[in-house]
Amino acid sequence: MELIVKKALLYDFYGELLTEHQKGIYSDYILNDIGISEIAAERGISRQGVHEQVKRCEKVLEGYEAKLHLVEKFLKAKEMVSEINKLAGRFQETKEPSLIHQIQEISNCILEEF
Amino acid sequence: MELIVKKALLYDFYGELLTEHQKGIYSDYILNDIGISEIAAERGISRQGVHEQVKRCEKVLEGYEAKLHLVEKFLKAKEMVSEINKLAGRFQETKEPSLIHQIQEISNCILEEF
Repeated sequence: MELIVKKALLYDFYGELLTEHQKGIYSDYILNDIGISEIAAERGISRQGVHEQVKRCEKVLEGYEAKLHLVEKFLKAKEMVSEINKLAGRFQETKEPSLIHQIQEISNCILEEF
Repeated sequence: MELIVKKALLYDFYGELLTEHQKGIYSDYILNDIGISEIAAERGISRQGVHEQVKRCEKVLEGYEAKLHLVEKFLKAKEMVSEINKLAGRFQETKEPSLIHQIQEISNCILEEF
């Protein structure tokens, strides 16, 4: 997965555990794609200050994921749903009944594992 | 949902953010269904002490869910997967093609929303 997507996902999952100040800087940087200099100018803090906050936020968010693995868990489940989606699409073309059996198996697996 | 199931889910999602001491007491109480008195005796602390830790753990775990809503999000997705599972089962009985279309729609919805 692209690094920026992973960072955005971590922020989406755990961002609310950052301070308001950190959320503002980090979401400007990661989600709104605003540069360090511009963020610094807008907030009246040094570029170094912005850089340090961004690094600190990354460390906090990665720390939560290292403990909870909820992004990982969610991505795994989503991949299985994507497989279901593909199988249903393939059924529309081929009418092959075993595809529906596979959908049942994968959905059972999601319901049991998670 | 039953309260005990909800408490177990909160622990499953956020339990790693408790201290080792808290995890020991809370998992004994919630997951292993051991009584307050027995936990107190085993750990050489007062019943009041165990009770306070249990309450504190609940507050911490509920606090994380209030901020992150990840259990809620996960349950919602799981309910949709359960619906897919039922539709696939119904298809095995009826061979009604519109059921597969519904599976596609629900799986698309999960992939877009989450």
